[in-house]
Amino acid sequence: MGNSIGKSLVLTSFGDSHGPYIGAVLDGFPSGIEIDLELIKLDLNRRRPGQSAISTLRNEEDNFQIISGIFEGKSTGTPITILIENKDHKSSDYESLKNLYRPGHADFVYDKKYGFRDHRGGGRSSARVTAAWVAAGAIAKTLLQKWYQCEVHSVVSSVYNLEVDNVFQLDWHEAENNLVRCPNPEIAQKMIDCIHQAQIDGDSLGGKIATKVTNCPIGFGEPLFDKLNADLAKSIFSINAVKGLEFGSGFESSKMLGSEYNDDAVSIENKEGGITGGLSNGKQLEFTTAFKPVSSIAKTQKINTKEGQIIDHSIEGRHDPCVLPRAVPIVEAMTALCLADHALLNLKFGKL
Amino acid sequence: MGNSIGKSLVLTSFGDSHGPYIGAVLDGFPSGIEIDLELIKLDLNRRRPGQSAISTLRNEEDNFQIISGIFEGKSTGTPITILIENKDHKSSDYESLKNLYRPGHADFVYDKKYGFRDHRGGGRSSARVTAAWVAAGAIAKTLLQKWYQCEVHSVVSSVYNLEVDNVFQLDWHEAENNLVRCPNPEIAQKMIDCIHQAQIDGDSLGGKIATKVTNCPIGFGEPLFDKLNADLAKSIFSINAVKGLEFGSGFESSKMLGSEYNDDAVSIENKEGGITGGLSNGKQLEFTTAFKPVSSIAKTQKINTKEGQIIDHSIEGRHDPCVLPRAVPIVEAMTALCLADHALLNLKFGKL
Amino acid sequence: MGNSIGKSLVLTSFGDSHGPYIGAVLDGFPSGIEIDLELIKLDLNRRRPGQSAISTLRNEEDNFQIISGIFEGKSTGTPITILIENKDHKSSDYESLKNLYRPGHADFVYDKKYGFRDHRGGGRSSARVTAAWVAAGAIAKTLLQKWYQCEVHSVVSSVYNLEVDNVFQLDWHEAENNLVRCPNPEIAQKMIDCIHQAQIDGDSLGGKIATKVTNCPIGFGEPLFDKLNADLAKSIFSINAVKGLEFGSGFESSKMLGSEYNDDAVSIENKEGGITGGLSNGKQLEFTTAFKPVSSIAKTQKINTKEGQIIDHSIEGRHDPCVLPRAVPIVEAMTALCLADHALLNLKFGKL
Amino acid sequence: MGNSIGKSLVLTSFGDSHGPYIGAVLDGFPSGIEIDLELIKLDLNRRRPGQSAISTLRNEEDNFQIISGIFEGKSTGTPITILIENKDHKSSDYESLKNLYRPGHADFVYDKKYGFRDHRGGGRSSARVTAAWVAAGAIAKTLLQKWYQCEVHSVVSSVYNLEVDNVFQLDWHEAENNLVRCPNPEIAQKMIDCIHQAQIDGDSLGGKIATKVTNCPIGFGEPLFDKLNADLAKSIFSINAVKGLEFGSGFESSKMLGSEYNDDAVSIENKEGGITGGLSNGKQLEFTTAFKPVSSIAKTQKINTKEGQIIDHSIEGRHDPCVLPRAVPIVEAMTALCLADHALLNLKFGKL
Repeated sequence: MGNSIGKSLVLTSFGDSHGPYIGAVLDGFPSGIEIDLELIKLDLNRRRPGQSAISTLRNEEDNFQIISGIFEGKSTGTPITILIENKDHKSSDYESLKNLYRPGHADFVYDKKYGFRDHRGGGRSSARVTAAWVAAGAIAKTLLQKWYQCEVHSVVSSVYNLEVDNVFQLDWHEAENNLVRCPNPEIAQKMIDCIHQAQIDGDSLGGKIATKVTNCPIGFGEPLFDKLNADLAKSIFSINAVKGLEFGSGFESSKMLGSEYNDDAVSIENKEGGITGGLSNGKQLEFTTAFKPVSSIAKTQKINTKEGQIIDHSIEGRHDPCVLPRAVPIVEAMTALCLADHALLNLKFGKL
Repeated sequence: MGNSIGKSLVLTSFGDSHGPYIGAVLDGFPSGIEIDLELIKLDLNRRRPGQSAISTLRNEEDNFQIISGIFEGKSTGTPITILIENKDHKSSDYESLKNLYRPGHADFVYDKKYGFRDHRGGGRSSARVTAAWVAAGAIAKTLLQKWYQCEVHSVVSSVYNLEVDNVFQLDWHEAENNLVRCPNPEIAQKMIDCIHQAQIDGDSLGGKIATKVTNCPIGFGEPLFDKLNADLAKSIFSINAVKGLEFGSGFESSKMLGSEYNDDAVSIENKEGGITGGLSNGKQLEFTTAFKPVSSIAKTQKINTKEGQIIDHSIEGRHDPCVLPRAVPIVEAMTALCLADHALLNLKFGKL
Repeated sequence: MGNSIGKSLVLTSFGDSHGPYIGAVLDGFPSGIEIDLELIKLDLNRRRPGQSAISTLRNEEDNFQIISGIFEGKSTGTPITILIENKDHKSSDYESLKNLYRPGHADFVYDKKYGFRDHRGGGRSSARVTAAWVAAGAIAKTLLQKWYQCEVHSVVSSVYNLEVDNVFQLDWHEAENNLVRCPNPEIAQKMIDCIHQAQIDGDSLGGKIATKVTNCPIGFGEPLFDKLNADLAKSIFSINAVKGLEFGSGFESSKMLGSEYNDDAVSIENKEGGITGGLSNGKQLEFTTAFKPVSSIAKTQKINTKEGQIIDHSIEGRHDPCVLPRAVPIVEAMTALCLADHALLNLKFGKL
Repeated sequence: MGNSIGKSLVLTSFGDSHGPYIGAVLDGFPSGIEIDLELIKLDLNRRRPGQSAISTLRNEEDNFQIISGIFEGKSTGTPITILIENKDHKSSDYESLKNLYRPGHADFVYDKKYGFRDHRGGGRSSARVTAAWVAAGAIAKTLLQKWYQCEVHSVVSSVYNLEVDNVFQLDWHEAENNLVRCPNPEIAQKMIDCIHQAQIDGDSLGGKIATKVTNCPIGFGEPLFDKLNADLAKSIFSINAVKGLEFGSGFESSKMLGSEYNDDAVSIENKEGGITGGLSNGKQLEFTTAFKPVSSIAKTQKINTKEGQIIDHSIEGRHDPCVLPRAVPIVEAMTALCLADHALLNLKFGKL
């Protein structure tokens, strides 16, 4: 279980990283909305492995097909099913890992929980399955755009110790012009260099992704348990390697006085990050997601074996030294799916 | 909607801050478990208003009754219903707020979303309803304790700019010996002084709460969308005023190298905070929650009126200058409910 | 679990037949709707034990209170919580049943499933809990009436071998004028006599209830798994003692030719019972529910004991010889709750 | 919405009758269970169009593939995704129906509800989508068989006015030896003749299907809203053309005395149909489903047009004169899925 997310707009994910297909069913999407397949392709390309010199060498084209729910270019209101073929899955890369519990991976807990695991690249724990989330997210973005001119954008705001100041104040269009998806071109270059160095060192890097949502309508979210921030948190923490999340000034806000923090009613200040009392307040949504460094590293490290020994081991395989650039469309997708779900939930109040 | 949370163990919250009762139904709780009403009372007392010199003067006894689901001191497997009377609700305190949108509160978005609002203290947005969550959480704690000797503890790790170092290394029993629930007595005293000063200044403070879970079994959580961290995130962000959450080294982990971050297999290091790939990994769960400062302050601030004017206003009423000490049992309760839910979900794997 | 029903309008039932209260939380009910407590009282009186010479002698007043979700006579959009006190529960009546598995009751399967059972009147299996369903159903009726002038009515169409012909063609207002709630006064009198005789004989009777819904809007229901008839079926079979259900001409339709059955587009014929392809078609909803005879009878019968013996036993206690008259408001309530749920689900199509 | 059914074992249906594929995702199925693809194929063949002289001439091979959730012949515990290609969909057959509301079909209510409809064969309302349910049902049967030696069988017990007496007493293996799937060979032949005649007359027939479940464990079902009969009712009424359902002696039981009805504790009598108080009682499950005659008939009938006229019309296309024989595996599938769901729900009680 745990393969579905959403209440009015439900994403059901299926497929294993090394099976023939991964995919998803998106149920609850309204009828009559034009679906631009190019937008889906675009986001899949932003996520796909092998897209640039700083990502994994695994090269997956991520060709997708939609086999239900769209007719003559428009949604029909019936479940939208997305299929993505797994082309370049080299199970042999993983053969040596059969009896190892890779640090940072779910190998050990999987074995303990299920009594077995698919050692070929993580199985259902693999970030591979997020390709279908990204495709579904692109469809959710279309809904938000059409109904509200609402747009979801994410950028890389830090890699390792390289951080962009005041990232929410920058022009984010710049981010798509560099390999690392950072809106500050100078820091972007430093990040790229840093990632190259990690690659050379057989090491890996984490970082942060900043997300903003423009034209988010007022009143998304429910006051108690389906707060917009709570549902976004569930969506964002569903992404592999996420270890922290903050809205608006987040952790910094814990160090402020109430008189400092309370957003002045007339200013454009947005310390709340666009959500008050669990509901979107009409300002831009702003939140920041922290990713741990990639778990698989070539550098030799201590590894537990299934038999309980500790060995020195270097994990081979074609891993990203830093997933942040490829995680940008995943964060956008999970955000868009969550917002579109709340858009549909809000229809009961006669809102559009 | 949005009044229920959980999958196998479902908490349904009901009641308004100024109605006759608030309460909750806890459905899915197994039969035959001894329920100690004293433990419920204890946690309610840790949350209750007026408990100490640094909390609100509103004095609510929070007497509760359990009207179903418990028979001769044991759970029967049927829904457990908790009722808590609202005794000390002075609606008059709030009369002056009828036409004001208090900064940091949901007043404005409520009006926009629902077209009306109960101005008497926040209605469903009021933290008053969390009393019933705390009672339900105490029952969930009993399950975790009985089945796994698993315990959930939270402490205040920072107030304003006063922060405890290495909070997870301290002895947390100390925390319940001071008004602010901080495990470092010296910093606790500074925090108390700081809160008193904020009270005098008519201002408010935020802070952070650290949570650890001992003896959490391996394998709680699902690999995809019901990751343990994702469900905990949803639970924790359901608490009023939470603006950030991080597991283990959290935001700090984004600045580490993979070779630094990966927890050595043999050491007691726990940078993951006890969750790997969305599943509990057998180490202690550790996470940190950031609270914004209390929104209601006596200090004069700019406030929007319903009619669109901006006025200088001082919010009267008996508000906490800092909710952190009273939020400790709320964080514990939401954590315990989430873990007990996953305990029950795990039964399908024949685990106990 | 299994204590909640509904998707957009969720009824959560709580309480045991011999605890202090039974009750329910109705979540998802829209705000601003006037709730007439007299209507609730009226339906509770139609269901209550001891209401007439042909029902059980147990006399429960079924005084109720609503402790949340209604403010100044109107719904607030927050969960509506109904409490009904259990006043006349004589556990002693049941003491003798402790080690017996009453035929037709869940005693045996309860013991097998849960390893224990509350022998005091059925616990959660008792029809006692339906009192709160009836109260919630009265609130759902208010919604249907206000939004669509839609009304739900049920009558007793047969008791034992006494059956009303063409029951859907009769004037049903007559039904509330006799003790048995049958729209044909002559047959009603025969039914009453028949029930009296069963009472004298220490025996019990079953029968059928006919239900019609006037002004049900077109398009309630979903084409696949949440068909209106499927959801009504789940709701109706949730009522104790129901063993059959048919829509429109139901079982008779299986003996017709397609050319006979297909409702002529212009006539008022309604063999479909108002539902086509799982969706309400704008005609009156019509369905019939079959109840088995009451399981508890005074007449001596073979009973299994917990120890595996078979004994001759006469079940004492104050049981109804025929529950049909009291089941009428229960069928109405479950129907109204199901329809109101679909009314709310339909809002996503901008329908009111 | 309304495309998913089940709680622990969730079937999500996707695909339109005239799109490239229909299919389903089965989520929650346990790992390690051997899946025999031949059994799936067998049931698909029992449902497929064109299988015999008495079914539609549309000839769909229903070749299926399973693209996730099965590895080396065993379930992996991850979602099982079934794809079935739509090969023989002649949209042209349906072109003439674009502006007609076929009696008995959802055409009219679809238009009213959604503002549009796919006139090519019913879209999501088409029984075409049940092919994937049958495949999923075959997988559910495997689980029931492996865990409990529990088996689900359905047969045709009546067609039009031809009815088998005491159908539950017969040897049902006989049923698969004739085209109509009736366990009484003589009546089977009469049924076949009768169906042929209806075909010649351009008319259609309904009938009844009897279902029995052997070795159903005691205690499936929940006492309140997830009663086993209530969940079976929801599952069975999800099947197109079902208008009635009764358990055990069903409607007949409404005419019995309690002293007649109560199943003698020692006899093999089973008037309850194997379910007492909403829980399976250890006897064989027995229930009967009534189907209305097929709506599409070649015989000229009055039809409403979209523009509000009434015309005489004969519906062309390759329709079944009687769906009962092909509905047998569909009833079995929905029954097996519902039982397997309850098997998984029951794991929380430590049962297997």
